[in-house]
Amino acid sequence: MHTLTRELHIKNPSKIVMLVGDGLGGLPITPGGGTELETARTPNLDALAARGVQGLSIPVKPGIAPGSGPGHLGLFGYDPLRYQIGRGALEATGIGFEMQPGDVAIRCNFCTLDSEGNITDRRAGRIPTEESAPLAIRLREIRVPGIEIFVEPVKEHRFVVVFRGPGLGGHVKDTDPQATGVPPLEPIADDSESQKTADVAKEFLKQAREILASEKKANFHTMRGFASRPDLPTYEEVYGLRAAAVAVYPMYKGLARLVGMDIVGQATTLEEQMQVLKEAWDDYDFFFIHFKYTDSTGEDGNFDEKVARTEQLDSAIPAITALNPDVLMVTGDHSTPAYLKSHSWHPVPTLLVSDCCRPDPHTSFGETNAITGGLGQFEAQYLMLLALSNAGRMGKFGA
Amino acid sequence: MHTLTRELHIKNPSKIVMLVGDGLGGLPITPGGGTELETARTPNLDALAARGVQGLSIPVKPGIAPGSGPGHLGLFGYDPLRYQIGRGALEATGIGFEMQPGDVAIRCNFCTLDSEGNITDRRAGRIPTEESAPLAIRLREIRVPGIEIFVEPVKEHRFVVVFRGPGLGGHVKDTDPQATGVPPLEPIADDSESQKTADVAKEFLKQAREILASEKKANFHTMRGFASRPDLPTYEEVYGLRAAAVAVYPMYKGLARLVGMDIVGQATTLEEQMQVLKEAWDDYDFFFIHFKYTDSTGEDGNFDEKVARTEQLDSAIPAITALNPDVLMVTGDHSTPAYLKSHSWHPVPTLLVSDCCRPDPHTSFGETNAITGGLGQFEAQYLMLLALSNAGRMGKFGA
Repeated sequence: MHTLTRELHIKNPSKIVMLVGDGLGGLPITPGGGTELETARTPNLDALAARGVQGLSIPVKPGIAPGSGPGHLGLFGYDPLRYQIGRGALEATGIGFEMQPGDVAIRCNFCTLDSEGNITDRRAGRIPTEESAPLAIRLREIRVPGIEIFVEPVKEHRFVVVFRGPGLGGHVKDTDPQATGVPPLEPIADDSESQKTADVAKEFLKQAREILASEKKANFHTMRGFASRPDLPTYEEVYGLRAAAVAVYPMYKGLARLVGMDIVGQATTLEEQMQVLKEAWDDYDFFFIHFKYTDSTGEDGNFDEKVARTEQLDSAIPAITALNPDVLMVTGDHSTPAYLKSHSWHPVPTLLVSDCCRPDPHTSFGETNAITGGLGQFEAQYLMLLALSNAGRMGKFGA
Repeated sequence: MHTLTRELHIKNPSKIVMLVGDGLGGLPITPGGGTELETARTPNLDALAARGVQGLSIPVKPGIAPGSGPGHLGLFGYDPLRYQIGRGALEATGIGFEMQPGDVAIRCNFCTLDSEGNITDRRAGRIPTEESAPLAIRLREIRVPGIEIFVEPVKEHRFVVVFRGPGLGGHVKDTDPQATGVPPLEPIADDSESQKTADVAKEFLKQAREILASEKKANFHTMRGFASRPDLPTYEEVYGLRAAAVAVYPMYKGLARLVGMDIVGQATTLEEQMQVLKEAWDDYDFFFIHFKYTDSTGEDGNFDEKVARTEQLDSAIPAITALNPDVLMVTGDHSTPAYLKSHSWHPVPTLLVSDCCRPDPHTSFGETNAITGGLGQFEAQYLMLLALSNAGRMGKFGA
């Protein structure tokens, strides 16, 4: 699709807003009942529905429940099956580490070894963060010539290592043997481009073993999910959009950064996000606003709280419409029904409003209406095309 | 998609049932009238519709009417454009011949040659089965060193030959010249891997010519549709499912066997199929139940009889729901409208029931409701993904 958008996009002064309620779609919890979105009182979303068009977005393919990475890449218009973000890169992104092209990120787990060098606990007893973080920071002493190394604590036994330097491929096998009573594995390159990465990892592990040798809680670590920064073309390149992300959590800022969005503001609440949006309004063409709590309450299995958070999302709408965006979309990166306490495969209710969107007859926003909404069921990766066209930013394909 | 399902599938004790009414979809025969399914009294299917979700399954692509092979491969989750079953292999499968990997199957037609060796009738006057079968069986005398040969009578002028042995490619040109007054063609290999197959076919034809020389009704035969057994990954490999097929007709047993299903029972009626299902219930995770008569009555152009057969299909539902499957799907491999007396391209009404299927508002099952059903219109190849997800048998894609 980006071949087309690169050729056909047009620049104009229009403004596009994509408001993502993470895990927005849901399920009824009582037979014949409504979903979370249908149960919530959402006068502002319903008013948008009345003048807009709704439908169901399929994050990846029918029946596939995506993680946050593929869920957002789809919304951003990147085929999530083609552009896959490796585990290490996603972990680094999730803690706000800004990977550069050529970087290789690795998820590391502290572990314990016995006197023979065999693993006794692959997660070092889930060592508390306050004890593991100082250990991770001690590993910053490690030096490998020609390579810049970053070590970032995460939570409990987890930390992230990033190698930066020329010629580092991202295909190296995990050193976690997925078993105890055996020694950790050597890092082995899966292709010749990654041999140097494997060598650097080997040297890193050697020095880490010495540094950690006398530690009681965690005297070594494994390395998993080696991954290069995914090579994603930017919003500027493929859509001609100056794009801003207004997000609270590092993961979503990181995903936005991977497609070239600027991270604006330091909001910690939805109200602050709306303030940031207003302040950044003149400087950008496209705004991605991320709201986390429709997902986290779904993951908790708390239907009522997801309803309440959906109502909170609804309350942000007037601050957006006051800015008169040319195109306003409200959607989710996937469904997170409280009933399932997890991300799911169900298509996501999606709403688009513009002055030329061909409204459908619905006057409220929800999963059931979306089935018969004017957008139909469509793969998320096409939403950005609809946004560009509704903003007058796409030329005609062919003569 | 199987790359994803191989990685993401999870095993659990859930049970999935796919009930296929062959050629289920139909057309009205009077303006404004209902289809066969809509005309039939189907209280059990309607009760499922009330708690489930329906939609329209597109067997291959919009506007493509499939045969039984691609129709079922799609339902089984195999891209029917990628996995094509060669004509010889489908013919062998259809008569219940169990092809092994490496086998090459060929459709043969008895024909008549004049004294010059030119074809006078490409179908030997559609010689009756009772006369052609003994001739086919005489061809079992043919010996080619190193090759095991099977000759199976079919109907009228048709029979099937299968070669079994090492190094047999499946790409050999037909020997039927598609004309009379000319001699049959030589079997010519299309690639070097199939040279041995062509040589074996040549020797087979030489011996067949001698054996049949003095026969009056059919003194030779042509060979068409050379085909290797299609190399399909199994349900166990791609979905982690122990799968059973409860079918009556050899063709559908054969198709199920190609994807690694076990053929269970020897039912000859739908009631017996339900009994077989019950007996096999504990031993499998997935059950494919095939019902032929919604197709055959459609092919006959008998609207009323297709309605009656649809009601018969409906009557089997309680025996299935009594087993409490976690996921129950009712669908067809294609439409066979009595109005057209043939397979058609119309999308197929499809129903899915599970405890997490996000029900739609419909309370009866049929083509018109399916248009606005929650499954939307989707390619049949995604139905198995939906089944696995609804059964809790698919992990999340990406983090």
